[in-house]
Amino acid sequence: MKVGRILDRSDVVAVTADGDRVRLPDGDLVDESALHWLPPLEFGTIFALGLNYADHAKELAFGSAPEEPLVFLKGPNTLIGHRSVTVRPAEVAYMHYECELAVVIGTRCRNVRRERAYEVVSGYTVANDYAIRDYLENYYRPNLRVKNRDTCTPIGPWIVDAADVPDPMDLRLRTWINGTLTQDGNTRNMVNDVPGLIAHLSSFMTLSPGDVILTGTPEGVADCKVGDEVITEIDGICRLVSTIGADLAAKD
Amino acid sequence: MKVGRILDRSDVVAVTADGDRVRLPDGDLVDESALHWLPPLEFGTIFALGLNYADHAKELAFGSAPEEPLVFLKGPNTLIGHRSVTVRPAEVAYMHYECELAVVIGTRCRNVRRERAYEVVSGYTVANDYAIRDYLENYYRPNLRVKNRDTCTPIGPWIVDAADVPDPMDLRLRTWINGTLTQDGNTRNMVNDVPGLIAHLSSFMTLSPGDVILTGTPEGVADCKVGDEVITEIDGICRLVSTIGADLAAKD
Repeated sequence: MKVGRILDRSDVVAVTADGDRVRLPDGDLVDESALHWLPPLEFGTIFALGLNYADHAKELAFGSAPEEPLVFLKGPNTLIGHRSVTVRPAEVAYMHYECELAVVIGTRCRNVRRERAYEVVSGYTVANDYAIRDYLENYYRPNLRVKNRDTCTPIGPWIVDAADVPDPMDLRLRTWINGTLTQDGNTRNMVNDVPGLIAHLSSFMTLSPGDVILTGTPEGVADCKVGDEVITEIDGICRLVSTIGADLAAKD
Repeated sequence: MKVGRILDRSDVVAVTADGDRVRLPDGDLVDESALHWLPPLEFGTIFALGLNYADHAKELAFGSAPEEPLVFLKGPNTLIGHRSVTVRPAEVAYMHYECELAVVIGTRCRNVRRERAYEVVSGYTVANDYAIRDYLENYYRPNLRVKNRDTCTPIGPWIVDAADVPDPMDLRLRTWINGTLTQDGNTRNMVNDVPGLIAHLSSFMTLSPGDVILTGTPEGVADCKVGDEVITEIDGICRLVSTIGADLAAKD
């Protein structure tokens, strides 16, 4: 089962996937490119990982990945849906995409042991956690100007039921810019895997249904320019299309 | 006007202040100590400042305060109301209170100039942004174990209308542990003042009604032990009572 959300005039409407087509509540099947997509859920707390793939840590010249999970929070202002426009801030020199497996929590939980961690996961989706590299002073500080800009986290289009994902730790992640493959990794190369992240976070705080964990990106990031079409896809989850737009709100 | 929220059995009920008493929706006046308080609002994005008073930066041995605002986000799991119990995690060596002015945003806004920043503020309250010092590796990294524990941010009881606060940058903040005054500062000593913080944040992201900014704490922090009663008060805003409880969920 794959569920998503679209905007139909001013109404938020739940939709499901039927092969490559989208089933509307009235039973009609339509093409996904014809819809105005929203993030697939009204998410709660949004967790994101820094440097959770060793190859990406090396690529950013931070040497090795941190020993314990480097987790930060993001605000809901960052999220937009499939086929939406992400604004590239006018003043920045470098903005890169980050294809990430997003893990949706389905059960209120605390002190979850890693052996039982998958029991609290309701589903998975794809996020593109764009980063404004200019402000990344060091890996301890993915500050708000790096990771909390409006529209800088496309997510969706589908949440795939956890039951339909046999092994979340063996999924191929790829990114294309304007049709050219630029990132090709696998979730098996995470430093802290999904059960480990859930065990870690729940060891000191409560997780709630709708909370989501963006699990980090492998190597192969590149600068995105205004007008680029960026596709991030995870095999067996979904394919997320994003376009880079100009910063119309830039101050003079 | 001061507004708050209480829990009446399973109902969330809005209340107002009438002198030192609390007016219930049916008009009855009751004592504030008789109520089960909730955070005064269902807050949106929760921003918090690190080292926003120079004397506190010195006290934590970080030397001078950072030049630009050091802002991080907190999850809603951290918030509890007036007269609630904050759990001191079993495994930690040092937990300190932080009396802070909390600024509530009332208007969706972007690129707010500092001269107009007060126009987007709807009100003010008091927060006690407890910190678990053990995990504070450096000032760039107030990680989730320092600042995102369940129950570690009492807030309230009242949101005071912005119109009733003539000068938010001249308010006395005090904290008492078990009746002994341990912190005595003034908002005029903030490094980044309220208009500056709003101008900074809105320069790169949208702020929304219900978002709240915890503006940092002055010097005078101390360790809190299980059983302590911690009172944080800001003159003209409100007085927030918090009790430190034992960690019953501690893993063996």
